[in-house]
Amino acid sequence: MRIACERLVTRDEVLDHALIDLDGDGRVIAVESDRPGARADHVLALAIPGLANTHSHAFHRLLRGRTHAGGGDFWRWRDTMYRVAGSLDPDRMRAVATAVYSEMVAAGYTAVGEFHYLHHRPGGLPYPDHAMEIALAEAAAEAGIRLTLLDAAYLRAGFGKAPEGAQLRFSDGTAERWLERWHRLRGALASSHPEVTLGAALHSVRAVAPEDLGLAVGGLPADAPLHVHLSEQPAENADCVAATGMTPTVLLDLTGALSARTTVVHATHLTDADIARLGAARVSVSMCPTTEADLGDGLGHAAELHEAGARLTIGSDQNVVIDPFDEVRRLEGGARLASGRRGVLPLGTLWDAATTAGHTSLRPGARTGIEVGEQLDLVALAPRSARLAGVRPHELLGAAAADDAVASIVRGRYQDSSALRTRAWDAFEEASHGE
Amino acid sequence: MRIACERLVTRDEVLDHALIDLDGDGRVIAVESDRPGARADHVLALAIPGLANTHSHAFHRLLRGRTHAGGGDFWRWRDTMYRVAGSLDPDRMRAVATAVYSEMVAAGYTAVGEFHYLHHRPGGLPYPDHAMEIALAEAAAEAGIRLTLLDAAYLRAGFGKAPEGAQLRFSDGTAERWLERWHRLRGALASSHPEVTLGAALHSVRAVAPEDLGLAVGGLPADAPLHVHLSEQPAENADCVAATGMTPTVLLDLTGALSARTTVVHATHLTDADIARLGAARVSVSMCPTTEADLGDGLGHAAELHEAGARLTIGSDQNVVIDPFDEVRRLEGGARLASGRRGVLPLGTLWDAATTAGHTSLRPGARTGIEVGEQLDLVALAPRSARLAGVRPHELLGAAAADDAVASIVRGRYQDSSALRTRAWDAFEEASHGE
Repeated sequence: MRIACERLVTRDEVLDHALIDLDGDGRVIAVESDRPGARADHVLALAIPGLANTHSHAFHRLLRGRTHAGGGDFWRWRDTMYRVAGSLDPDRMRAVATAVYSEMVAAGYTAVGEFHYLHHRPGGLPYPDHAMEIALAEAAAEAGIRLTLLDAAYLRAGFGKAPEGAQLRFSDGTAERWLERWHRLRGALASSHPEVTLGAALHSVRAVAPEDLGLAVGGLPADAPLHVHLSEQPAENADCVAATGMTPTVLLDLTGALSARTTVVHATHLTDADIARLGAARVSVSMCPTTEADLGDGLGHAAELHEAGARLTIGSDQNVVIDPFDEVRRLEGGARLASGRRGVLPLGTLWDAATTAGHTSLRPGARTGIEVGEQLDLVALAPRSARLAGVRPHELLGAAAADDAVASIVRGRYQDSSALRTRAWDAFEEASHGE
Repeated sequence: MRIACERLVTRDEVLDHALIDLDGDGRVIAVESDRPGARADHVLALAIPGLANTHSHAFHRLLRGRTHAGGGDFWRWRDTMYRVAGSLDPDRMRAVATAVYSEMVAAGYTAVGEFHYLHHRPGGLPYPDHAMEIALAEAAAEAGIRLTLLDAAYLRAGFGKAPEGAQLRFSDGTAERWLERWHRLRGALASSHPEVTLGAALHSVRAVAPEDLGLAVGGLPADAPLHVHLSEQPAENADCVAATGMTPTVLLDLTGALSARTTVVHATHLTDADIARLGAARVSVSMCPTTEADLGDGLGHAAELHEAGARLTIGSDQNVVIDPFDEVRRLEGGARLASGRRGVLPLGTLWDAATTAGHTSLRPGARTGIEVGEQLDLVALAPRSARLAGVRPHELLGAAAADDAVASIVRGRYQDSSALRTRAWDAFEEASHGE
């Protein structure tokens, strides 16, 4: 297959009349520029690399546009979310994830990290054959997105509290049993869905006891991506300090959870010492600005974390908004609101967040440029979007919107955004059926 | 003309199978509901009332996607904006305003308040025949948006400082001469563009001296809308207190500028006493969240102002983003980030902000429902937008995006959003020509 891009904008370059040849497996054979008028299977007027979504809870999509009247705080929202979590089976999970992942690809995300904790039947009895996890893998295949399944250890309700209610579906009981299931899942995916990257997650310091953090980390392969919710709300910091005498960051660091393969999610309420520690560990940070505004979490510390050496990435988290460009604009905008300065994060850092750093958070060592030998990911943008008129090529990342994405190529597979949006609608209808 | 809405969602109602009859002037003759299958000139699957944009500087659109690398603060951004302001003539002003207003109507805004200070030639010599103001009126007519032209008094660079550079184009020299021009402009618009509402603006306490504030307010008709920038940046508060011993809010109040016909813009950095005073005066507040993030202004005081009795509205201001739904989502989101609570502003208040309160800020006494005798404004949304699947009718205002608007009716005139976006592109090209 041959793809022509009248203009291809990457982090550092603007290539005009680029021509990309792919083999039958979607791998790049050759990239040339300055080849105007060449014949191609698809001609993209304006293209950028595929964008990475490092934090998603697919099923939270069912809450979009349904929680405003409830008011309250994060914890009241969580009660509503738990009611939805309690109602899902593998079929509905597959349907809602297909809807969400299709909306993501339509918007320009070509890879997603699914932070997954809804493992078991109501009450906690396991499904046979990893039914929930396979449902997510099937949804990703249907939508055509690269999936990193971040299977989460969720073992308790909070410091010294056993899981209850919907949380019984999340828990494997002990760190050892979670690890056992994780390794079995790895085997199952390797045979049925080799395209899925299996990663791991520690839900949070609330949900995994200090002694289990070390156990869990030690039982994972060294190359598995490891994600963890960190300091999203002040209350979880206070509980952690009260129970352990440490901030969540310090606790995670001392149990070996912080390293270059780690992505901490949110990292909203940190001390200066936390920021220095996260930077020194070279972690990635998944900032989820649309969710953090929706849940009233706070503006976070993007500029300081970047300065300290952490790698910023973006996530759509609860999927109330699925728009990578909005996340980027809010990532920079939040840093501006927090500092009263403009252009806080260099443009290259915003590109890294949406592309390289994001993909690396999901697949350590990923080669994510338009590189010979790699399966191609690209996003095609509308050539004459009124929104982008006059915008400088490298600033489009903070000026575009989801609807400017008109087509995507993931692993060499071309899909129209409009067809993906129709599929998202249909799958959502299926997920809501009988609700 | 007859408009059918399969579903019409207003602040308080959800009408199914609504039928709206219009006379030749676009005025509503009758509204009925439960009339499925009736013949109509336009069938809208999902419609909402027209949305109001209470604060726009059309020409700032030329800076979209061009200032990130500059960094700095608000004041450095202003230098860049002044360079653009220095380069415009009436033809380019008409072209860029046509682009911006077309993008607005495409996105669901049916009325705009243009806060206009670029009056004169470079150096300050007047154009003949109100050329800049007529250019804006023509642009609004071309785009089909309701225009309230807020002609601004801008008389000095700051406390005790004469205007300089681009500001020479803004200034009429004295409050008397500004008033004189304002009244002449009123006559000129009444004959050439009777569809335009002429309002007035005091640029800010920086740009109008205390003695001139009272003069200006006193010389205006009591029914003219009056807008003023208020406390966008801490530095202007400090300067005002240093020069007058008063906060900008107190100064405006003591000079008679605060009343129910007044809209204060931004109101980001206020004291508790300021908030109480603004509430007691029953002012409207134009919150411009996408701009306030872009310029690093701050999160503001939406919840407190609402609580105190002020009426919230939304504005696109510098037009880096033109998306009323995004402004609404960020209005509520900013209140959540500031408070750590959810559902801070009642849904009805968000609807008021985007509709009734906004329209009233632009046309005091406006009847802005779907009302017999009034010219009809409506926005048609995509019937099967994946983004809106599952969203409750009254929550769509905070869940939709500009691209969900597929058509608009303003004063009874129907326009497709896609045609408007093409017009926006073409007009922007014209505005950038030779740049």
